[in-house]
Amino acid sequence: MRQVGSVLWPKLRVLQVYGANTGVGKTIFSSLLCRAFQKRLPSVNYLKPVSTGPLDEADDHHIATLDTGVNSKCLFQFNDPVSPHLAVRSAGRPITDATVLAAVYDELSKHANGQDGISIVETAGGVLSPTPSGSSQADLYRPLRLPTLLVGDHNLGGIGTTISAWESLHMRGYDVHSVALFSEDRGVDRYGNFAYLRDYFQDRSVTAFSIPPPPPRNVNVEEDHQAMQEYYEQSAEHRDVMAFTERFLASHDKRIAEIRSMPEEAEKAIWHPFLQHTERSKDTIMAWDSAYGDYFQSYTTTQQTEQNSPADPEPSLLKPAFDGSASWWTQGLGHGNPTLALTAAYAAGRYGHVMFAGSIHKPALDLAQTLIEKSGNSRLKKVFYTDNGSTGMEVAVKMGLRASLMRYKPENPRDLDIRILGLKNSYHGDTIGTMDCSEPSIFNEKVEWYKGRGIWLDFPTVKMREGRWLVEPFEGAPFNTKYFHSLSDLFDFHQRHRDWDAYKRYLRETISDAVKQGDNIRLGSVIIEPIILGAGGMLFADPLYQRCLVEVAREFYEPNSTTSNGDGNGNGGDWTSMPIIFDEVFTGLYRLGRFSAASFLGLQPDIVVNAKLLTGGLLPLCTTTASDAIFSAFLSPSKTDALLHGHSYTAHPIGCAVANESLKQLQNLERAGAWESFKDDWSPRAFSYGVSYQGSEHAWSMWSWRFVSALSHKRNVDNVFALGSVLAISLKDVEGGGSGGGYASTAATGVRDALLRGEGSVGVDNSVVHSRVLGNVLYLMAAMTTTEETISGIEERVLEVLDG
Amino acid sequence: MRQVGSVLWPKLRVLQVYGANTGVGKTIFSSLLCRAFQKRLPSVNYLKPVSTGPLDEADDHHIATLDTGVNSKCLFQFNDPVSPHLAVRSAGRPITDATVLAAVYDELSKHANGQDGISIVETAGGVLSPTPSGSSQADLYRPLRLPTLLVGDHNLGGIGTTISAWESLHMRGYDVHSVALFSEDRGVDRYGNFAYLRDYFQDRSVTAFSIPPPPPRNVNVEEDHQAMQEYYEQSAEHRDVMAFTERFLASHDKRIAEIRSMPEEAEKAIWHPFLQHTERSKDTIMAWDSAYGDYFQSYTTTQQTEQNSPADPEPSLLKPAFDGSASWWTQGLGHGNPTLALTAAYAAGRYGHVMFAGSIHKPALDLAQTLIEKSGNSRLKKVFYTDNGSTGMEVAVKMGLRASLMRYKPENPRDLDIRILGLKNSYHGDTIGTMDCSEPSIFNEKVEWYKGRGIWLDFPTVKMREGRWLVEPFEGAPFNTKYFHSLSDLFDFHQRHRDWDAYKRYLRETISDAVKQGDNIRLGSVIIEPIILGAGGMLFADPLYQRCLVEVAREFYEPNSTTSNGDGNGNGGDWTSMPIIFDEVFTGLYRLGRFSAASFLGLQPDIVVNAKLLTGGLLPLCTTTASDAIFSAFLSPSKTDALLHGHSYTAHPIGCAVANESLKQLQNLERAGAWESFKDDWSPRAFSYGVSYQGSEHAWSMWSWRFVSALSHKRNVDNVFALGSVLAISLKDVEGGGSGGGYASTAATGVRDALLRGEGSVGVDNSVVHSRVLGNVLYLMAAMTTTEETISGIEERVLEVLDG
Repeated sequence: MRQVGSVLWPKLRVLQVYGANTGVGKTIFSSLLCRAFQKRLPSVNYLKPVSTGPLDEADDHHIATLDTGVNSKCLFQFNDPVSPHLAVRSAGRPITDATVLAAVYDELSKHANGQDGISIVETAGGVLSPTPSGSSQADLYRPLRLPTLLVGDHNLGGIGTTISAWESLHMRGYDVHSVALFSEDRGVDRYGNFAYLRDYFQDRSVTAFSIPPPPPRNVNVEEDHQAMQEYYEQSAEHRDVMAFTERFLASHDKRIAEIRSMPEEAEKAIWHPFLQHTERSKDTIMAWDSAYGDYFQSYTTTQQTEQNSPADPEPSLLKPAFDGSASWWTQGLGHGNPTLALTAAYAAGRYGHVMFAGSIHKPALDLAQTLIEKSGNSRLKKVFYTDNGSTGMEVAVKMGLRASLMRYKPENPRDLDIRILGLKNSYHGDTIGTMDCSEPSIFNEKVEWYKGRGIWLDFPTVKMREGRWLVEPFEGAPFNTKYFHSLSDLFDFHQRHRDWDAYKRYLRETISDAVKQGDNIRLGSVIIEPIILGAGGMLFADPLYQRCLVEVAREFYEPNSTTSNGDGNGNGGDWTSMPIIFDEVFTGLYRLGRFSAASFLGLQPDIVVNAKLLTGGLLPLCTTTASDAIFSAFLSPSKTDALLHGHSYTAHPIGCAVANESLKQLQNLERAGAWESFKDDWSPRAFSYGVSYQGSEHAWSMWSWRFVSALSHKRNVDNVFALGSVLAISLKDVEGGGSGGGYASTAATGVRDALLRGEGSVGVDNSVVHSRVLGNVLYLMAAMTTTEETISGIEERVLEVLDG
Repeated sequence: MRQVGSVLWPKLRVLQVYGANTGVGKTIFSSLLCRAFQKRLPSVNYLKPVSTGPLDEADDHHIATLDTGVNSKCLFQFNDPVSPHLAVRSAGRPITDATVLAAVYDELSKHANGQDGISIVETAGGVLSPTPSGSSQADLYRPLRLPTLLVGDHNLGGIGTTISAWESLHMRGYDVHSVALFSEDRGVDRYGNFAYLRDYFQDRSVTAFSIPPPPPRNVNVEEDHQAMQEYYEQSAEHRDVMAFTERFLASHDKRIAEIRSMPEEAEKAIWHPFLQHTERSKDTIMAWDSAYGDYFQSYTTTQQTEQNSPADPEPSLLKPAFDGSASWWTQGLGHGNPTLALTAAYAAGRYGHVMFAGSIHKPALDLAQTLIEKSGNSRLKKVFYTDNGSTGMEVAVKMGLRASLMRYKPENPRDLDIRILGLKNSYHGDTIGTMDCSEPSIFNEKVEWYKGRGIWLDFPTVKMREGRWLVEPFEGAPFNTKYFHSLSDLFDFHQRHRDWDAYKRYLRETISDAVKQGDNIRLGSVIIEPIILGAGGMLFADPLYQRCLVEVAREFYEPNSTTSNGDGNGNGGDWTSMPIIFDEVFTGLYRLGRFSAASFLGLQPDIVVNAKLLTGGLLPLCTTTASDAIFSAFLSPSKTDALLHGHSYTAHPIGCAVANESLKQLQNLERAGAWESFKDDWSPRAFSYGVSYQGSEHAWSMWSWRFVSALSHKRNVDNVFALGSVLAISLKDVEGGGSGGGYASTAATGVRDALLRGEGSVGVDNSVVHSRVLGNVLYLMAAMTTTEETISGIEERVLEVLDG
């Protein structure tokens, strides 16, 4: 794995030259800028990554013959004067984007060695012209995110093509420093392109300048050469060119000063989430310059004091940092995804936000229909929109409590102590209503208005220890530890009838006892995070136990009910006893490899909450999807019986449109078999136990089986698990003296810090791994688009750090 | 006022032809499509809104001479063959976008009269080429949002220019139906443009096709004409052209079927916010096809049964509906704002979402600094990000309670009954924690876990009745009704020293009595919606009373404190007695004409919450800004003392970037004097009382003083007020028998429904007004970019409806 990220070398400026179209003068501008910068900097380099057309006409050759002292280089040269994607074909030399990118990075790096300089990188064709691989110029070079000069189009129609080209760059996250173009007809601006563009871009804080075009081609080669030399000499001293070089040099320094000051400025103005600020200083704050794919482009004040590798004597201020928490579990399709960016812009352009009270728009309707249809849960019928998991869970709780009370019909609901039934270590959000759904813990104990309103049960957890999957009972449980040959065996509930019985017996008794603690206690809803309890500590609950809990709950107030038909779902479509709420905010929508996390349990909850991955990791949106039976509990002739909940941006079109596109992309990945090799790796067949699972049905992870097993053998690892894109490593809390841990533990922070320092990087690049810990658990999470190669690179690092 | 909106006539299809560049063949494609559609439809029209160049070369002339039976028209013709923005200058005929748009709309309307047909509208130049006014083609025609054919660029470099042009259209909310381009060199695709674009657009659900280019120009005019005739005849029967016409006709029918079915589909899949669904049917659901500026493009199942105006015998299925609630109070810069859309795309392209725990990115830092700086409140120092007003208020409450308890240092906080102090009818959000901050009401009384935790006070309200501003006391208040000559007088607190004393006396007594109701009652924070209490009924609180409440609260537990220095702000920078929280979610950021709503009260709260207008009306984001003293209350060596709150998308870069752009645009509007005529209209000088207010300091509204006064005299109006962009009309609840009303009242729904039916439209267009009611109050709200002309058009309608 070799990770090429955005660069910001203190002494080597890099300027990328894009054209609004072919033939607008990219090479001429590059040449004269080389000359102009030579007056200011000792080292000037010109780089043409990909060139097509005969060598004597090639851009770098042009530069080399015309300029002296410019270090000129072309990396990939093709003779056929056509678009690179065709030239590679006729040359029979396919080249990937990664190859070009790495070559550009290496070439640039050579000049970052201390002498003040600039490298000018000239792209091929227009902004979105094809690359050798067939992607676009702007997409190929995006990971470097170099400051850009856009050469505008001076021809008739050039106003429109120039602005469109700028928009295409802008929406890919590029910073266009200036726009430059030829004046027309040697000074007579017949089309008015420059005057228009200058004003247009001034309003957008982009400077534009124009210079006269070169003299017409002279058939006498020597005279032509002479004329061009003169043209370059004059142009390089053109007032506006000089002003541009000055501005560009200043902007480089400003960018460095800005990124260097960001941590300190943040310390002054920002109140960070979930942070004890006595532990914060400018040296602990990471600044994100940008992000792309699986990586942040990061800056910290501390990184510059570390040793530099000899190959990189003047390191870039920016380092690629693997987004190991998937940005708090949100990422599914990579940062800076241009399709999602364009989708967001489309919805913004078509609607902006349109209020949702009593109305409908297509993105919201499409998304609701998709969620209902793809859930595989025939009782889900109605989608309620909110902005984040916490508000979505508030809605779920309001739905569940009302529905159950409609069933019990108490004379005065206020006399009842209505509780939710859940598991210990559950977590459903930070608003006070959802906090009340979780047991007292360090998350909520200091919140003055917090009041735990639940009955929370212990539960057995799934772990791999020394290569073996096991289900470990909680302290005092009437069950023993059980071992499994594979992760899939653990999900094969039919083979686990003994556990089934034992779990049910235990749950019935325990819940009955708990309810009897108070005369007025009533259970209003079950709330479960299926499979993995996230913020409460990354705990993998035994799925069969969760299944049993739901089944027991569904018969709880109706012990003689015949509705429990053995599939755990009660009578068709309607809920029994109390509504079942699944908080799939974290675990749903492919985080664990499947659209629905409930499907692992073979259950149909009455209410499901989705968020995080819903928008592919772009912006906040949440859905609470409910059955018609729940919906009916709010129907009455009275307005006051309605679910009087709503947020200003309820079902905002951008969020819904991006969610539709994200779910489409995720489903396409699944359909196209993008995860097949991960699935194969985890196939139960691989463990030769002859258990037959259908195709994609077995549990699998993007983290390799070998890696997870190797981790589980490490002396400092207590246990580990992986499912879907989630990996959790429980470290032995040596100082703390055992398996304790908890949220306030610091057991895993050593590993986290070593990964962030780039340890285990085996010298391949300057990237690091950014990860998060929950107590003694260090977890890592990938996007659903993360490649096997990237994953295996991260795996190597983790293993090395754990050894070190 | 004449509102041109998006059109969808059942029998008249409209196809708009855009070019990826000039000279790519828009006119030729338009001509041959006219011919091709003639084979399928009885009526084919060609419209060139703006044409430059001599008449004999003009596009419509070309079409007219070459085609028979096509009704061809050019609306604005200029001889100078340059960009329209230059042509109008040399012709001395400036034309606004609105003029062009209205002319296009009128011309199209002529053909919507029942005969099956199509109108082909050919734009000028490329997608973003200038219009006569200097805006871009795509921006000029955006309000019509016509289905589009993009003529691609077949030249070298045309792949990039075509895709960029498509992106520019897409991010303005256009639906590009197909891309068409010439094949190169009569069949030999040297550049491979078509093959590349076909595959590229297929992935994006856009069909592409190509046809051979026309024969080269023949100097013999007759032969040239003959050759072109033959070319058109052949091309119109080209297999791919025929296929396109079929697809386009089908897509028109599909679009109609889709919009017609949306209300019904929504009824099945959507759980609407704040709605008693027994009142919902497909006939009550509005479908938004798109939105632009101040208007939705709306569809309802019922509108088609209404009488058609004779001028519009086959009305468009879509009607422009003025967004009279500013989409639940969020809109500030108009729907479909292309700058905001591009800003959103830039942030998505540069970052996607990047996690905010312990980190920083530029959009979040910039926004925090702006909010701190522009608040005019020297104590605000730290910004905490959440997703919406409700979660931002949860954070504010957590901050306020912790800070006050740190001051009181109770032995066991759980023994205390910690309350907030506020006004009756307050509203702070729908999560249970913020519901607890509001008095029991129909919003919360059915929420099982709701528990009012406050002391809520009555308050005098500001109203205009029969042309006079007055402050009306609440029932049983020890104050009389007071009259004021102008709205500004009411804010001139120095002139109101008697009220000041009376208010303070009353408040001290009342609060003391309330606290004495229980031994354990402690006040944890004051929470106020400054000036206007929004969702609780659109009530204009006497600002002096709110000021006094804060001053009394700040001395409450410290009666001998010397910190009350008379300006109501206690000692510099730190809070006294209890933290003051201002919920400016609705009233802040220019909704009332000023950046800070607190500034009306001359107060510096300790915590301020902003949302809604923060992103200019595009997507959810909320900030809770606090003083350093509040921040310090969470500092300790223990992690558990931290504010353990955060959402996955905390400080998402798109939201922050859009907020920065929105605030910049709003501040630019203010600086540029965009609201000066509104301010002049409300200038106290206009009331000739000689009171001197500095420049922009006086209270003003976008709704005209004459209109507000006229409303206040209407027999069915109890009272009215306007401030900033907000107008609230309190209607007499005749059936209810008096001034009662309340949330469940239906007093104002008659007016709302009449406005939605388009009554009072005086026949100028088919637009309607969409508004919301709160009990007996009908309110209207503009964006900060709404023009005087639009406002006055709405004012006319409201007056007519109230008379009718």
